[in-house]
Amino acid sequence: MIIYDLIIVGGGAAGLSAGIYSARYKLKTLIVQGDEPGGDTAIAALVENYPGFESIDGFELTQKMENHAKNTGVEFAQGEVSIVQNQSHCFILKIGENTYQSKTIILANGSERRRLGLSNEKELVGKGVAYCTTCDSPVFKDKIVGIVGGGDASIKGANLAASYAKHLYLIAKGDSLIAEPVNLARFNELKNTTVLYGTEVKEIVGKDRLEKVILSKAINGNVDLKLDGLFIEIGAMPNNNLAKDLGVKLDERGYIDVDKFMQTSVDGIFAAGDISNASGYFKQTIMAAAQGAMAATSAYKDVGIHGKNLCELHAKAYE
Amino acid sequence: MIIYDLIIVGGGAAGLSAGIYSARYKLKTLIVQGDEPGGDTAIAALVENYPGFESIDGFELTQKMENHAKNTGVEFAQGEVSIVQNQSHCFILKIGENTYQSKTIILANGSERRRLGLSNEKELVGKGVAYCTTCDSPVFKDKIVGIVGGGDASIKGANLAASYAKHLYLIAKGDSLIAEPVNLARFNELKNTTVLYGTEVKEIVGKDRLEKVILSKAINGNVDLKLDGLFIEIGAMPNNNLAKDLGVKLDERGYIDVDKFMQTSVDGIFAAGDISNASGYFKQTIMAAAQGAMAATSAYKDVGIHGKNLCELHAKAYE
Repeated sequence: MIIYDLIIVGGGAAGLSAGIYSARYKLKTLIVQGDEPGGDTAIAALVENYPGFESIDGFELTQKMENHAKNTGVEFAQGEVSIVQNQSHCFILKIGENTYQSKTIILANGSERRRLGLSNEKELVGKGVAYCTTCDSPVFKDKIVGIVGGGDASIKGANLAASYAKHLYLIAKGDSLIAEPVNLARFNELKNTTVLYGTEVKEIVGKDRLEKVILSKAINGNVDLKLDGLFIEIGAMPNNNLAKDLGVKLDERGYIDVDKFMQTSVDGIFAAGDISNASGYFKQTIMAAAQGAMAATSAYKDVGIHGKNLCELHAKAYE
Repeated sequence: MIIYDLIIVGGGAAGLSAGIYSARYKLKTLIVQGDEPGGDTAIAALVENYPGFESIDGFELTQKMENHAKNTGVEFAQGEVSIVQNQSHCFILKIGENTYQSKTIILANGSERRRLGLSNEKELVGKGVAYCTTCDSPVFKDKIVGIVGGGDASIKGANLAASYAKHLYLIAKGDSLIAEPVNLARFNELKNTTVLYGTEVKEIVGKDRLEKVILSKAINGNVDLKLDGLFIEIGAMPNNNLAKDLGVKLDERGYIDVDKFMQTSVDGIFAAGDISNASGYFKQTIMAAAQGAMAATSAYKDVGIHGKNLCELHAKAYE
């Protein structure tokens, strides 16, 4: 069984950045990619707020990071990760059919944005459908946009999106908006918004681009609503099963609790990117990349302190 | 007098990234550059650990960020910054000969690495002379390097640099090394190092590249020491005068104390990059860029809460 210094679970911006730093620290490093290499960045269509690139396709950006990591010496594996042995500074993980051993772990397996589960929803991402108002509001300058939500994130998102859009429809399932008072006050002052209460999106229509949505309730006698853009802001779920199995402390929303060095509550385990609460719940590629760099730096320090022969000894015992 | 939503002091990676985010939030934003636009990144020669670029000239990277900020609508000014009025959510700053007003401030004016003060030191940066072992150790793979220091940062740096170098000379002014025990233990195990105690670098010699240094004390009867690389790791000083004038809380090392949202102890003032202790004292371009993005996001929130008419009223009173 090969002993790694560091196994990074997740191949998005956080994991790839951690890999680049880790390999440069000469740690023997494995990145485990899941079903969606590149994570949320890879499916983000155009990224226009990663400093250094005015505009770059999200997939291309993560490909650059992946190549960077590979050329720096990071190894890659793919598959579901489960735990065989959870002993500080000597973790044994099963990845697909293979068993691997590592002195440290970085959890960087992100979160899952909640989707409406409609057809065309996935196909039209970057073609009218979007999940990040901070990232994509400027794309819909002077356009007609909808935002599905009703909670605080959607109100904050609506405030930003409406500052660019010609008109914004907030499509809220419930009968009221639940948000921080300051965000709600700001929203209520907007002149270019319409709130559709008790309304759901039933269909997303469009071939190569979003054309319209079909609502559960008519507006001006019509269930068709023409939109240039549709933001879906109905929350996210951290992929925290592995974290739970490792006994890592989660916060009240299920994200991994970390300090500013990306240390979790378990010695030898670090977290970075959207699965952590390092930057609150502000999910941006640039934050994920920085957190990955920090987590790898902490893992490097940790291997220096604890990693020396410990894992080799544990490994013997296990064989 | 023009009222800005946000004035960012510092035009390095942290300030430029903050500007990009701020302008995308539609805040009226001014970046004040000092004597060294682009900050430490701009003078870093090749940057090979900013995820997205396998290798890019530091100056080129900050130029990309500066253009990005300009094209997003950020305004720029240049000069020394001093305070005229320090009232929360309405700061009046003097920049050069002009007076500006802002609802929020981001301090991103970095730190100054201590230099030896020798001739050729500045000229040969990126041509053998370097200040960041995390960034540049791989550059000197299988080469002969020196590192000037003796404190913890230099020992940690030596551990990494020696893992790449053929041989490493640690040039220590004092008679002993003062570092964390774990770092010292690691250093003492290295087989390819020589410590030169009670020794200083008197001259840096080289025309287009570093050729050698001249030591204050002979080694094997010779004060000349041929080196491919020379790291200078003798500490840094945060540029905290303005922070002090603004009454912002500093930590015991003089860096600005921030929480994970880059909030300082003063309402309406945020900090990002090397001047803050957001990531301990880990100074990397990727961290600075992420901290800038976070600080701008916090400033945007703050302007939403407090910024509305407050500054206009204060401004009237001041006129």
